[in-house]
Amino acid sequence: MLHDLFTPSVQHSLDLVGIFVFAISGALMAVRKNFDVFGMAVMAEVTAQGGGLLRDLIIGAVPPAAFSDLGYFSMPLVATVIVFFLHPHVERIQGAINVFDAAGLGLFCVTGTIKASEYGLSLTSSVVLGMATAAGGGVLRDILANEVPSLLRWDRDLYAVPALVGATLAAVFIAFDVLNGATIGVAVVTGFVLRLLAMRYHWRAPRAWNRRSSAAEEPS
Amino acid sequence: MLHDLFTPSVQHSLDLVGIFVFAISGALMAVRKNFDVFGMAVMAEVTAQGGGLLRDLIIGAVPPAAFSDLGYFSMPLVATVIVFFLHPHVERIQGAINVFDAAGLGLFCVTGTIKASEYGLSLTSSVVLGMATAAGGGVLRDILANEVPSLLRWDRDLYAVPALVGATLAAVFIAFDVLNGATIGVAVVTGFVLRLLAMRYHWRAPRAWNRRSSAAEEPS
Amino acid sequence: MLHDLFTPSVQHSLDLVGIFVFAISGALMAVRKNFDVFGMAVMAEVTAQGGGLLRDLIIGAVPPAAFSDLGYFSMPLVATVIVFFLHPHVERIQGAINVFDAAGLGLFCVTGTIKASEYGLSLTSSVVLGMATAAGGGVLRDILANEVPSLLRWDRDLYAVPALVGATLAAVFIAFDVLNGATIGVAVVTGFVLRLLAMRYHWRAPRAWNRRSSAAEEPS
Repeated sequence: MLHDLFTPSVQHSLDLVGIFVFAISGALMAVRKNFDVFGMAVMAEVTAQGGGLLRDLIIGAVPPAAFSDLGYFSMPLVATVIVFFLHPHVERIQGAINVFDAAGLGLFCVTGTIKASEYGLSLTSSVVLGMATAAGGGVLRDILANEVPSLLRWDRDLYAVPALVGATLAAVFIAFDVLNGATIGVAVVTGFVLRLLAMRYHWRAPRAWNRRSSAAEEPS
Repeated sequence: MLHDLFTPSVQHSLDLVGIFVFAISGALMAVRKNFDVFGMAVMAEVTAQGGGLLRDLIIGAVPPAAFSDLGYFSMPLVATVIVFFLHPHVERIQGAINVFDAAGLGLFCVTGTIKASEYGLSLTSSVVLGMATAAGGGVLRDILANEVPSLLRWDRDLYAVPALVGATLAAVFIAFDVLNGATIGVAVVTGFVLRLLAMRYHWRAPRAWNRRSSAAEEPS
Repeated sequence: MLHDLFTPSVQHSLDLVGIFVFAISGALMAVRKNFDVFGMAVMAEVTAQGGGLLRDLIIGAVPPAAFSDLGYFSMPLVATVIVFFLHPHVERIQGAINVFDAAGLGLFCVTGTIKASEYGLSLTSSVVLGMATAAGGGVLRDILANEVPSLLRWDRDLYAVPALVGATLAAVFIAFDVLNGATIGVAVVTGFVLRLLAMRYHWRAPRAWNRRSSAAEEPS
């Protein structure tokens, strides 16, 4: 089932980095919502593991990596401790959440696509699952924080498109059988940089026809 | 595992129709919440696939149909495009959401019950899973929209009972071995019409003893 | 796969009791939120089954017990009927929710840990999954009620730590091969009593450094 697209240790390392940066984003959100240290740990774990857990359940990889690999579980706890003691001044938190979140987005859309493909899903389905892996944790984070997921809001900068581009690049590399450390890096960095650019230049997606004129008055 | 209760192509077509109408309902909710076009696509996918995805994970049908069948995935995108350009004036949206949602409810409670039964669950469990298939997508839609699921609210018209009746009819037809296109149609239409009647005549379920008198003052 | 740690009937009975008390807690929350009787049943089912369902999906025990065992499914309906007719006066509801929730917490953190271990997870992963089993239903309950999960809030008394202690005790008993009715009882009661003490004496966890001084002004 698992044909050797690239070494497991590379996948593993990338996953750990992605988990760490998403966990930082979750723990910072917990600080912003004024949760306690256990709430921070839960938010870190859910944000970091949520997308991958969903992916593993969908492709039938049980028990999911989140529960079979102690590294996956420990990383968010490390992130929680770091954020607990060192989190920046409150007004700078949102920016930090966004940058870490962008890095996780770039990493997870690529590793999610690759893992789904390894489990036999079609390339199109793999791209969708890669996007779900990348965005799922953040959506769960926002649901736990009782906020409308920022993925969905029109007044937030593009989030799904960078993940879509990164995941599609990975799928193209798989299709042409040129997936390796360098091409993976290209796909990850493309997703990450596109997300940073989307935030920097406030790229936004249109809303439904006839809704735009009434945007200003909309409460949420 | 899959004994031939009725042809797979009938199940498939009904599923596609149910996915389409639920997707319309999800995309319209996204318009009402003022989400952008990607938020519309996510809401359409989640509303349409959520219940079936839950069902497939529970019965162990992995990868779920949502990820192994491109038709399942494409249908909500078609619905998103239609709603994007053609959605009715804002004040008429809620009515349209409700009618499409009722059609999806009728279809999914029946196909969910049948698929669960095909995977070996008892008829009672199949009815429960049929209801979960039908209601799950709408609950996820409301959670993503950061609203109390309308399934739960006392001031909303009956939702679970039409699904229960449709699913139970399907289970009875399975038990008496008379499941076919006509009986499936009867079960689907029964669920759909009951839901429409519940909305037309504002059928409501009682709340807990001693709560009724204080209904008017309740804030939520 | 299933080595005989203790008799299945003991596990089954404990699960049923845990399901019942969590279901009471879910139905009472539904009363507080003014849901109708079907909303009460859904909240009872989700609160009672949510954690176990998540656990079973993660360890690959499909179909989950919630759908293969009619007792698991019926118990929340019994709880719904009881709460429907006999729920205490509104001002006493929150206290009752909390005590029943504590009992469910103690039971589920232990049975979740044991079942995860039986399915081959490491003891550490089993403890984590035991905590998720215990806390998962309550988190889903709060999400459905559109509230910030009380698990995460700094102004709520310790919740995760009692579950952690109960689950760890169970794991230690498994490691030393002394798991039996008496030791299980010790673990369950320890988790339950710790949670009651946490509520009685308002034990709380710290928040992130530098956040404590600004606690009073925080809006959420």
